[in-house]
Amino acid sequence: MATEPQEAPETAVDRELDDAIAARGYVESRVRVRYAETDKMGVVYHANYLVWFEVGRVEFLRAMGLDYSTMERETNVMLAVLEATARYKAPAKYDDELAVRATMTGIRGPIVRFRYSIVRIVDRLVLCEGETVHMALGPDFKRAELPSEYAERFRRLVHEIHGNAAGSGIAKLAGSSEPGANGGELA
Amino acid sequence: MATEPQEAPETAVDRELDDAIAARGYVESRVRVRYAETDKMGVVYHANYLVWFEVGRVEFLRAMGLDYSTMERETNVMLAVLEATARYKAPAKYDDELAVRATMTGIRGPIVRFRYSIVRIVDRLVLCEGETVHMALGPDFKRAELPSEYAERFRRLVHEIHGNAAGSGIAKLAGSSEPGANGGELA
Amino acid sequence: MATEPQEAPETAVDRELDDAIAARGYVESRVRVRYAETDKMGVVYHANYLVWFEVGRVEFLRAMGLDYSTMERETNVMLAVLEATARYKAPAKYDDELAVRATMTGIRGPIVRFRYSIVRIVDRLVLCEGETVHMALGPDFKRAELPSEYAERFRRLVHEIHGNAAGSGIAKLAGSSEPGANGGELA
Amino acid sequence: MATEPQEAPETAVDRELDDAIAARGYVESRVRVRYAETDKMGVVYHANYLVWFEVGRVEFLRAMGLDYSTMERETNVMLAVLEATARYKAPAKYDDELAVRATMTGIRGPIVRFRYSIVRIVDRLVLCEGETVHMALGPDFKRAELPSEYAERFRRLVHEIHGNAAGSGIAKLAGSSEPGANGGELA
Repeated sequence: MATEPQEAPETAVDRELDDAIAARGYVESRVRVRYAETDKMGVVYHANYLVWFEVGRVEFLRAMGLDYSTMERETNVMLAVLEATARYKAPAKYDDELAVRATMTGIRGPIVRFRYSIVRIVDRLVLCEGETVHMALGPDFKRAELPSEYAERFRRLVHEIHGNAAGSGIAKLAGSSEPGANGGELA
Repeated sequence: MATEPQEAPETAVDRELDDAIAARGYVESRVRVRYAETDKMGVVYHANYLVWFEVGRVEFLRAMGLDYSTMERETNVMLAVLEATARYKAPAKYDDELAVRATMTGIRGPIVRFRYSIVRIVDRLVLCEGETVHMALGPDFKRAELPSEYAERFRRLVHEIHGNAAGSGIAKLAGSSEPGANGGELA
Repeated sequence: MATEPQEAPETAVDRELDDAIAARGYVESRVRVRYAETDKMGVVYHANYLVWFEVGRVEFLRAMGLDYSTMERETNVMLAVLEATARYKAPAKYDDELAVRATMTGIRGPIVRFRYSIVRIVDRLVLCEGETVHMALGPDFKRAELPSEYAERFRRLVHEIHGNAAGSGIAKLAGSSEPGANGGELA
Repeated sequence: MATEPQEAPETAVDRELDDAIAARGYVESRVRVRYAETDKMGVVYHANYLVWFEVGRVEFLRAMGLDYSTMERETNVMLAVLEATARYKAPAKYDDELAVRATMTGIRGPIVRFRYSIVRIVDRLVLCEGETVHMALGPDFKRAELPSEYAERFRRLVHEIHGNAAGSGIAKLAGSSEPGANGGELA
């Protein structure tokens, strides 16, 4: 797709995808709560939100035109989880339709950061927020370089989302519990 | 450990282990129901019994002195699941202590069969019974030979458990719901 | 929606929904394989197919205009799993998009039967087939009557799918591995 | 068991149990990594550590003579997770035997805090550390009072573990990665 192969891995298409993400500040995916994900409290077991964060993370990359599966296979680099945090606001219930909003919040060397918000579709209530920190690892589970074509796009995208001061992705994610503020953004 | 290396992979120790299993007819492991394993019905979600079957299967092999993890790593052969069946008799609940009884019921070429019974410790009630069928696969997910040292011991063990007509492992597993019949066997 | 409330729970809309299912023979849902669902073999852990069967089952009911969640809440009856079987043909891999095809195959008293087929979207390969048997249970986990409005529609739908001899849902599900035979049915 | 019923729910036995926990600073449970808990990276999927934290938390309470299952049933109060954090140091692998060390680190009103450390048995390497924050909730998922007999014992135990300055439970957990420092504490 690039006009000058290998030297300009980023294309006009990539740029458009990134701009679309930057404009909104996050990427939104949908999940529906499965019976298997509930527990005897009658609500979703808390560890499952980390699984949904991962769904959101993967779809964030896919919206950039990047395929995490391909990245693992072709570059032999994985983004291992270094740290994960979740704050639970209200319980998701069986069969609820949920929006998983994910945004990249930082990149420094082999470290990449994501932030998430899980929003109940029916009333836009934020059920859970969280962050994950990842490190690029090689097949030996040792620290590795993030492939440069990924690193560059990540850096620029983080900059674009953050630089967009009035409506940064983090602000949008954080403010997503106020229907007034983010009502129009729900797909 | 073998007196004649490579030619007699089975040792007196192996024989003793196998005899112990054959005498009882199965190997018993323990699990305690985790909150994560329950669902909104207030009982264990049905797919988790397959996970416990696997716990039982691995402990069955360990009781033979075989380490499934080592087998996968050293022989590059995995025992992939071809078929799994579970029949649910009564629900396991949160924090229940359970006995997972596993026995090998057949081996033919690359195919190995296991049978299971999940028994509630407190009253010896059988909660679930099931079977799995496995096939030896290579790293390419193509059918492979079961390593001969495993195949031989599996064959003999299946023969010993089955040949022991009056009290075969299958009969013992099947009859495990009658406290009178199997009361004394609970570790 | 009914013209004569309570007496004719089935409406023209219900009939249309059921006819649409009967015509195709099954209901199809989509899932994408999550990282959490893979295991160290690099493919999906076998117990997760039962979770997808449940996704298919719930969407089958939803396609009939029935909401399993509402049924549990309003009638106090749950469809507990009595038996589950899965036959694994080929492994699903991380990020694969899958079609979960579910059909109801029988109803007799409080017992309802479903059949499933998990098909890889990209090449229509059948990865897994299976069945589940369910029993209506009350909140005390004792056998209960299936609410009559559900029972009647289930019976008629099973009859319609089966009676449609040349292209019964079961035949369609079973034959779904031949792209030639079922190619046109993939949404 | 109490000499003055209802007024002194704490007994000599309770005191002994609490003293034993305070002396060590934490309660240790064991888990063995299941195949189902691994992912295609070949190591444990990160969300499963939260499940093990829960195992540790429940065993912490059990070591105090408290049964979380009974507490939920008898007092109608649950300890819902408000926040969970995990920091991953090194990956757990299939079939690894792990120690889950849990300690209570705080109680204020309906809020209870726990800290965890997951240690690989074979070499005492700390694989993961984390915290959870819980809130007492009633059956309506509204904030509730922690039953007073639990609250009192929690408060005293937290005080005893923390007051023991030189060797507080938190210090012990935090320092558990140095075999020299905590070698003797491994059961």
